[in-house]
Amino acid sequence: MSNLSQEHCSACEIGAPLVPKEQINALLATLDNWAIDNLSIDKLIKQYHFNNYQQASKFVNLIVALAEKEDHHPKITLEWNLVSLEWWSHKIKGLHMNDFICAAKSDEIFRSF
Amino acid sequence: MSNLSQEHCSACEIGAPLVPKEQINALLATLDNWAIDNLSIDKLIKQYHFNNYQQASKFVNLIVALAEKEDHHPKITLEWNLVSLEWWSHKIKGLHMNDFICAAKSDEIFRSF
Repeated sequence: MSNLSQEHCSACEIGAPLVPKEQINALLATLDNWAIDNLSIDKLIKQYHFNNYQQASKFVNLIVALAEKEDHHPKITLEWNLVSLEWWSHKIKGLHMNDFICAAKSDEIFRSF
Repeated sequence: MSNLSQEHCSACEIGAPLVPKEQINALLATLDNWAIDNLSIDKLIKQYHFNNYQQASKFVNLIVALAEKEDHHPKITLEWNLVSLEWWSHKIKGLHMNDFICAAKSDEIFRSF
């Protein structure tokens, strides 16, 4: 659980500050089972399991609505009863506070299932 | 263009025949710019570009509806204005005729945009 889910994304311009490495770990600790993918650039990644395709695709639509509301768009992968999310900030090639906020909001949506 | 889009998927059971390699190339030639990903097992893959996120997410929903109608479910990846589809048959770990049919149907949906 975290209070991040109550916050909102800010405009992320080129040159906006990346979340510092030490803060990334502190923020990760407030989230529920998110991990960092840093094969290329840092991304917040998580997989969500569902009982069926209908639930999984409903979750995708709610994440799409979140992305539009926050004007921040994750990579979403739907594969049968599994949805994978990857949040990162293209313009700064790494993690902005927006990504942690949207990760927390994604979990909040998942908890409503 | 191909007539595959007018066909429907059949139940694909464990042990159903894979599409033979020589037929794969012939079928690929009837499709519009699909490719084979055979890093692990053969998959039919394609990326579709859209003008905006709304169009891309609308396309995802139409592919979800197709998947439900045909009871055949691709891996769908939505990333901003790009949608990637991967069709393959889990039960036979490769390509069934269903995959070519659904690839053709996906293109038909895309052409409606």
